[in-house]
Amino acid sequence: MRFVFCGFLALSCCIYASLSNASPRNLILIIGDGFDDQHVTMGRNYLSGMQGALVLDTLPYRASVQVETISDKGQPLYVADSANTATSLATGGITNIGRIATDISDNDLPTIGERAIASGYRVGLVTTSSLTDATPAAFLTHVSARSCEGPEEVLGSTYYGIPQPACPDDARDNGGPGSIIEQLVASSAHVLLGGGSDYVQQLTIDGESVEDAARRAGFVIVNRDTNLDSLVSDKPILGTFDGGTLEVRWRGAGGRIAEPTETSWLNALSDYLGETTEPEPMVCEPNPDYGNTPSLASMSGAALRHLSRENDIGFFLMIESASIDKQSHKRNPCGSIGEIQQLEETLSLAMAFAQTHPDTAIIVTADHAQAAQILPEPTLYSKYPVPIYSPGLTARVHTPEGGTMRINYATNNGFSEEHTGANVPLFANDVAAPLLKPFMRQREVHDAMSHFLFRNVDP
Amino acid sequence: MRFVFCGFLALSCCIYASLSNASPRNLILIIGDGFDDQHVTMGRNYLSGMQGALVLDTLPYRASVQVETISDKGQPLYVADSANTATSLATGGITNIGRIATDISDNDLPTIGERAIASGYRVGLVTTSSLTDATPAAFLTHVSARSCEGPEEVLGSTYYGIPQPACPDDARDNGGPGSIIEQLVASSAHVLLGGGSDYVQQLTIDGESVEDAARRAGFVIVNRDTNLDSLVSDKPILGTFDGGTLEVRWRGAGGRIAEPTETSWLNALSDYLGETTEPEPMVCEPNPDYGNTPSLASMSGAALRHLSRENDIGFFLMIESASIDKQSHKRNPCGSIGEIQQLEETLSLAMAFAQTHPDTAIIVTADHAQAAQILPEPTLYSKYPVPIYSPGLTARVHTPEGGTMRINYATNNGFSEEHTGANVPLFANDVAAPLLKPFMRQREVHDAMSHFLFRNVDP
Repeated sequence: MRFVFCGFLALSCCIYASLSNASPRNLILIIGDGFDDQHVTMGRNYLSGMQGALVLDTLPYRASVQVETISDKGQPLYVADSANTATSLATGGITNIGRIATDISDNDLPTIGERAIASGYRVGLVTTSSLTDATPAAFLTHVSARSCEGPEEVLGSTYYGIPQPACPDDARDNGGPGSIIEQLVASSAHVLLGGGSDYVQQLTIDGESVEDAARRAGFVIVNRDTNLDSLVSDKPILGTFDGGTLEVRWRGAGGRIAEPTETSWLNALSDYLGETTEPEPMVCEPNPDYGNTPSLASMSGAALRHLSRENDIGFFLMIESASIDKQSHKRNPCGSIGEIQQLEETLSLAMAFAQTHPDTAIIVTADHAQAAQILPEPTLYSKYPVPIYSPGLTARVHTPEGGTMRINYATNNGFSEEHTGANVPLFANDVAAPLLKPFMRQREVHDAMSHFLFRNVDP
Repeated sequence: MRFVFCGFLALSCCIYASLSNASPRNLILIIGDGFDDQHVTMGRNYLSGMQGALVLDTLPYRASVQVETISDKGQPLYVADSANTATSLATGGITNIGRIATDISDNDLPTIGERAIASGYRVGLVTTSSLTDATPAAFLTHVSARSCEGPEEVLGSTYYGIPQPACPDDARDNGGPGSIIEQLVASSAHVLLGGGSDYVQQLTIDGESVEDAARRAGFVIVNRDTNLDSLVSDKPILGTFDGGTLEVRWRGAGGRIAEPTETSWLNALSDYLGETTEPEPMVCEPNPDYGNTPSLASMSGAALRHLSRENDIGFFLMIESASIDKQSHKRNPCGSIGEIQQLEETLSLAMAFAQTHPDTAIIVTADHAQAAQILPEPTLYSKYPVPIYSPGLTARVHTPEGGTMRINYATNNGFSEEHTGANVPLFANDVAAPLLKPFMRQREVHDAMSHFLFRNVDP
């Protein structure tokens, strides 16, 4: 990061100070990571049936959002990651893959979370990923690379043996504000709930843990022993409920994910010969590792209570269902669908909150499209006397209504699927709708949110 | 088909007869076959640039549409074909793959085209496919299988040696109304423009050609020698400009389509070894076979003039850009993008028409999702020291703005890609918008159109 004086930010604070809210103004942004239209439809088909409707589908406004990414030279890139897309949503800027609220020249981009805090709003981040993951990070921190999650990573790290980018200018060692987790606990956020205790436990260059630094900054630390439903605190809260990403709710029966189609030796000679056997259908089942992991809705409920309690200004709350994406990377459709259910429960909660808090805008969107595709079961070409099958990995998921949804993962041959480049859906309640257009760029979603929070101040 | 008395149809005519239009009421339905959000974004990125906007994107209303398909036993199927989806749009019913305006018990479902004609509207179908293809067919004909395109196919045919379904109950040989093309020329449509001269030239059981039957039914026959821009006729017009599907506007340079990644012998031992070479990037170029094929916009312009001329009631016009889908089946992204451009030009024309004809509703939608996916260029995992590549076929398309869009086709190993199951986008102008909801089922799009045309008559 490189700090640039932001005259506009100062201006917005001044103008805001001259405004007085008639009633608290609340903005709830729910991000389904990787929650593109294939995933929305997967969720609908499984959770509500082909002829049913999701809670999402009852919202009165829907738009499509173009995702914009640029290379470090400023050239267009057509597929994003969660870092640059969260940066667009959080700052209104366009940047390169991997960057957190910094532009391609490494200038810090002021975030809506920071501006909200500066303007008197309470701010919360809730996620099923680590709090240090790209999506939450971009709302309150600035680093040149998403891998700089904790003090141990900020000067460089490895992932499966592969060197990850360092953020030398951001490191406290070099006079910077520190890694993502250090910046988060210094951000004056009011609620930080998610995974990431591995990073909270790391030591800063002062020799204290990040958790201790958070306590010094005034945070109450909560964990799995805390009853989130009855949590009341006058102080900001920081809760991490797993080392990194939270466990997901569902999995394929017996832990199955998408699998290759089995082929006979004759098929190896030619695609059009021999026999092939697709993976057997599976059902979804509870993930036995989920245990007492707090649900996204219970974390969000605690956040809503904490942010709204005795608050006559309002709040900005970003909630992320992160593992829709992460489970699609792993080719686990049941994992993704369970996390869509988590998003749905959380949206219901937000809508109930908005019923009793009338100036509450709710926006739900995805950050980027993802790999899964729903394919015909059986193939459209089943009458042809040759084996027709996915060249990738296939899961055939039995749905509660008695259908079989065939899901294809075939973006690459590697250990993790690729994101894809389609525009993504956006859903909004009636308070948010007047701010929006049927077709928006991701940075314009930021601008609309900014307009809602900061009123007459141009975003 | 099996004819079932439709009390409702009779009712709608009676009620319509008691209404008088203050001004002509026109409904233009533009269908992009397979035009899902991946394809919309492919079109935007190529035709307008990543930061640009399509004509579509300027429309004031956008929704998502759930596609519904059932098996012949009524069980949910999660991926459709163009026959059952066009049936939903045209009739409001849900049916099985391959069926044209018939339900799974082979009852005829009254179509919006037929009801419009019966109510005094003029009706037109314009398509870049054969007029006998599933999408146009479902608006004015009823057969049990889409393959029953002409008199030579209605009792059975083959496609690449594979037997195709026959429609014995529909055949004139058995007292039925005949094949799709025979039903079309008997439908009292006012405009039929597209491909399909192969079917028009076939002989009926009376020994005359379908074209002669059309002349007897009052059609003026037009062809490539006709100047569509100056065509004026008091009679209905039938024009077929190619044997089957019209040639598409664009292709990949030198005729290239998506290709496999080349792998070295070591990679054959393990995905994670050896060298791989992705297909070289390509540009799009004019298809040399396109010749003087009429554009979708020129056919649509002729249709609009013919349908609106001295018409104080109004019209229903279905326009299909068919080869967005057909070119994705063939893994030809440039082919699809050129046909998206055709759709865009046609939409511009429709919007200009609506400017001077105020009671004109415009709805643009897709029938079902399709195979293409935009992938990162390079892969998100390019830093890993193993070859990461699509298991399917890849095209890397240079865009006019200087980017490279990598398109993945990997739904199957066969000769033609599979459709996919995502909900599809819908776009509308301000006249159509009040009829619509942010989330709709495909059959509800029919109901909304029906409400627009038939007013107080419940759809």
